[in-house]
Amino acid sequence: MRMKDLYAPTLKETPSDVETVSHEYLLRGGFIRKVAAGIYTYLPLGRRVLLKIENIVREEMNRIGAQEILMPILQPAELWKQSGRWDDYGPEMMKLKDRHERDFTLGPTHEEIVTDLVKNELRSYKQLPLTLYQIANKYRDEIRPRFGLLRAREFIMKDAYSFHASWESLDETYEQFKKAYSRIMERLGVRYMIIEAETGAIGGNASHEFVVPAKIGETNVLFCEKCGYQASDEKAEYKGEYTQEQEEEKPLKKVPTPGVKTIEEVSEFLGVPPSKIVKSLLYKGREGYVMVLIRGDLELNEAKLKAHLKDQSLRMATPEEILKDFGVPVGFIGPIGVDVKKVADHSVRGLKNFVVGGMEEDTHYVNANHPRDFKVDEWYDLRTVVEGDPCPVCGEPLKATKGIELGHIFKLGTKYSEAMKAYFMDENGEMKPFIMGCYGWGVSRTMAAVVEHFHDENGMIWPLSIAPYTVVVDILNMNDAEQKQVGEKIYQVLSEKGEEVVLDDREVSPGFKFKDADLIGFPIRINVGRSLKEGVVELKKRYSKELVKVNIKNGFGALLETLEKMKREYDPKEAVR
Amino acid sequence: MRMKDLYAPTLKETPSDVETVSHEYLLRGGFIRKVAAGIYTYLPLGRRVLLKIENIVREEMNRIGAQEILMPILQPAELWKQSGRWDDYGPEMMKLKDRHERDFTLGPTHEEIVTDLVKNELRSYKQLPLTLYQIANKYRDEIRPRFGLLRAREFIMKDAYSFHASWESLDETYEQFKKAYSRIMERLGVRYMIIEAETGAIGGNASHEFVVPAKIGETNVLFCEKCGYQASDEKAEYKGEYTQEQEEEKPLKKVPTPGVKTIEEVSEFLGVPPSKIVKSLLYKGREGYVMVLIRGDLELNEAKLKAHLKDQSLRMATPEEILKDFGVPVGFIGPIGVDVKKVADHSVRGLKNFVVGGMEEDTHYVNANHPRDFKVDEWYDLRTVVEGDPCPVCGEPLKATKGIELGHIFKLGTKYSEAMKAYFMDENGEMKPFIMGCYGWGVSRTMAAVVEHFHDENGMIWPLSIAPYTVVVDILNMNDAEQKQVGEKIYQVLSEKGEEVVLDDREVSPGFKFKDADLIGFPIRINVGRSLKEGVVELKKRYSKELVKVNIKNGFGALLETLEKMKREYDPKEAVR
Repeated sequence: MRMKDLYAPTLKETPSDVETVSHEYLLRGGFIRKVAAGIYTYLPLGRRVLLKIENIVREEMNRIGAQEILMPILQPAELWKQSGRWDDYGPEMMKLKDRHERDFTLGPTHEEIVTDLVKNELRSYKQLPLTLYQIANKYRDEIRPRFGLLRAREFIMKDAYSFHASWESLDETYEQFKKAYSRIMERLGVRYMIIEAETGAIGGNASHEFVVPAKIGETNVLFCEKCGYQASDEKAEYKGEYTQEQEEEKPLKKVPTPGVKTIEEVSEFLGVPPSKIVKSLLYKGREGYVMVLIRGDLELNEAKLKAHLKDQSLRMATPEEILKDFGVPVGFIGPIGVDVKKVADHSVRGLKNFVVGGMEEDTHYVNANHPRDFKVDEWYDLRTVVEGDPCPVCGEPLKATKGIELGHIFKLGTKYSEAMKAYFMDENGEMKPFIMGCYGWGVSRTMAAVVEHFHDENGMIWPLSIAPYTVVVDILNMNDAEQKQVGEKIYQVLSEKGEEVVLDDREVSPGFKFKDADLIGFPIRINVGRSLKEGVVELKKRYSKELVKVNIKNGFGALLETLEKMKREYDPKEAVR
Repeated sequence: MRMKDLYAPTLKETPSDVETVSHEYLLRGGFIRKVAAGIYTYLPLGRRVLLKIENIVREEMNRIGAQEILMPILQPAELWKQSGRWDDYGPEMMKLKDRHERDFTLGPTHEEIVTDLVKNELRSYKQLPLTLYQIANKYRDEIRPRFGLLRAREFIMKDAYSFHASWESLDETYEQFKKAYSRIMERLGVRYMIIEAETGAIGGNASHEFVVPAKIGETNVLFCEKCGYQASDEKAEYKGEYTQEQEEEKPLKKVPTPGVKTIEEVSEFLGVPPSKIVKSLLYKGREGYVMVLIRGDLELNEAKLKAHLKDQSLRMATPEEILKDFGVPVGFIGPIGVDVKKVADHSVRGLKNFVVGGMEEDTHYVNANHPRDFKVDEWYDLRTVVEGDPCPVCGEPLKATKGIELGHIFKLGTKYSEAMKAYFMDENGEMKPFIMGCYGWGVSRTMAAVVEHFHDENGMIWPLSIAPYTVVVDILNMNDAEQKQVGEKIYQVLSEKGEEVVLDDREVSPGFKFKDADLIGFPIRINVGRSLKEGVVELKKRYSKELVKVNIKNGFGALLETLEKMKREYDPKEAVR
């Protein structure tokens, strides 16, 4: 491909609404263009990268015996009503009516479609296990799409679904996916972590995320350097000890705390540390209100709360709802004398003589004690684990980092097969619901994550496996007939060898060409410039400053050898932390 | 792939709502499944065929220098309002609102998006010509989806768009597309026709369709065996002579014709041939009513009418509208004494003393003559050309056939670039609208068209280029240890050679296996059966009855040679008319 033909309009300026490196570089490098919020066109360079990612994912899926299918984007509402998710999924689901007023959704995921597909056609345990996958668009109407491809409304995913007669068979396939996803990461050439994760709205019994470390990442990872434990902060368990206070219980007392609402304000006003205050948080779920209690110095982990209570619809009650239903402003909520279900983090268990909201405007209770003053219905691990907390496996202090989730695998169990009555006949002739797994990989997101992972101040640094082109040949002075001729010749030789090569034969300055080459991130650049007078061209790895000079007076043998060597050695990990 | 692992649930019975061969066989062979009206899932075999078609199309696009991109399915309304098509496109356009109440459409086509994409980024004639393409889903909310993949609501297309500084450059690219599309047809191995076509709702100055002959085809093709003229019936011109009647004009007379409405009824009632009656048809368009006049024995061609009047919104007025606005039931409409624009087919020009509607219930005029009794504003060729009409090029009688449109190419000209203000700077520094072309290819439709084209009473007959697998190895008796072992060995040897091979190792009867193999349409079947006792296996082309026996006692050399020979010779055209 000649640079002057390639449709890759690069931008010198950073577009205004850009928040992340990948968003900036992919726009500036001419890989993507915005069509609407969270909706993009992939230009030729971006499409090439995507096709390569798709191909790696496809190969690794085929390798573990998953069979490729293609399901519709337009999904009829009926199937989502069967699973109960038509109403549950929330405003991120894009809905529409056809000309006959029938309801459809633009599929955010395909559990319903695939379960309905095999239902009544996959009948016997003999046909199991079966794994199907597709690579296709998905839709999520994010309230605030941002970070370019990292949080888009239209995006490309690989989603796979497996069907099993036994939990052991699911476990086996789940492990195969772990291996396949690890191979994908290795082929991308990135550092990655496999972390324990929450199952969230997808549901199921176990889940792992495949995460690429990146500053902009939205997944908070806790990990243990000693034993290797790795989990998202939504999942990480707290197994450390809690203080069991030995104080004598003092008499409960209601005190005026005018305008004092937050933990910090209460702590300062009453002169008690946050660890002697209990936060009372009101949530609303399928079964009405739930009050959640946790020590004042800790953060509640909503994902844990939802998982423990098995209610993904739980959300914090609004100040208006609280005022209306309890007659109290939100800052003065407390567990005493109020008839709602109460769940508490273990951190509250050993506390004595603590402060809680007075359940009356501008008041708090001091010297509250349980079970004397209020009853807790259920105790759970609800705190958000943070850096320095003990590893739940070995007790060593945990470290924290951020990452971008590329893969997410779930043991779904029978959640969808039961809801949609998808059964098979087992060895004893009994009808059983399929045991299922599901396995997502963010294909378009991978493109952005790799840029977040590998870049420098000049642009992107693509790994060879997904670089849009491997080599760029820069003719530095287009007015120099010899440079032009040799550049063309190298371009021709490399093209004939099947190398993915771009010839920059535009009539612009060498500096302009170098800037574009660095921005676009071609792994290897060949300069055909002034040193050609001595028969020399230069090769350079994208991330290295070193120019390797090669003499081509007697042919291209040395050039090709050097290029092969550079490709073998090429590893952006070497250059980028 | 082992048949017992392959997810291809074949059906013995024909599903009930099936109207065409391709629909039946693709369902029964386990290639596709219906999710909703006009919406399908592609199962593993179908996905493989699709990927092969996509690949052929992609290669031929890349070969002519078109660059692959990927545009969004979700398109913001604003762009369609710029081109004027948001309101014009009609109910086939699926529309939805996002959570912020912004309007979107599921793109039925991408002229707006691609024009907006290059606008302001492609600035100079030096960057032209440029051709971009994508392979992606398209949406058309057909009022009555049918024929399986042939008229679906969600389907896969390759759409390409070219941008030019001159008409000559557009012509060049247009010719390249003709060649590329011919190569695609040749790689598919089908018979095909390139026909002149109407531009319809897409607009533009010239258009060709690439059509595969098939009984079920919705494109009516007229062709000349003498000179090679080929056109759709929407486009085919009539250049034959019309009678110039020499009768004297008789006095106009209104006669009672109670309850007599159709041409046939009028002809019988008044005892005049249909060729002495003039049909008056009322249409409604952007500029109100238009009356269309044509000789009673001819069919009006709506596509020609829309093209001549440059109004794609033209539609026949309803009986209710006519009664309301003209006070006359639809059967008695006529040109005399009514003040609407009148256009007529040339067939009316030479008529004398003909019959027209009386513009009053239960009456007709006899001995009508123009321009004496009414004025025709514009004369056009408006008749539908039929088999036997003279070829517009050489005069030979035309033949008619039906075909399925796979490709459609258009010289758009400046329709979209002017509407959307997409300009470039020409050599003289002047701003000019891009001259554009667009080029569609129905990817998922190709799968169905090939089945319509190549099949027999037992199932599909895939050409090698897009067969889901090339070879099926049938082990006829799974209880025979030698058959099993040899079958496995052949499967292994072929797999290692990179052959796309399926091993049918299911514990079912040979007849069952043969039926599935024929239905699915594997090009070559290898039987490992009783003759193995003599060291012999059999090879068979899907469309041939001949079993070629090969001795494998001394290794697989002869088997592999025979297989290669069969592949070289394989041509479903030989077997299917």
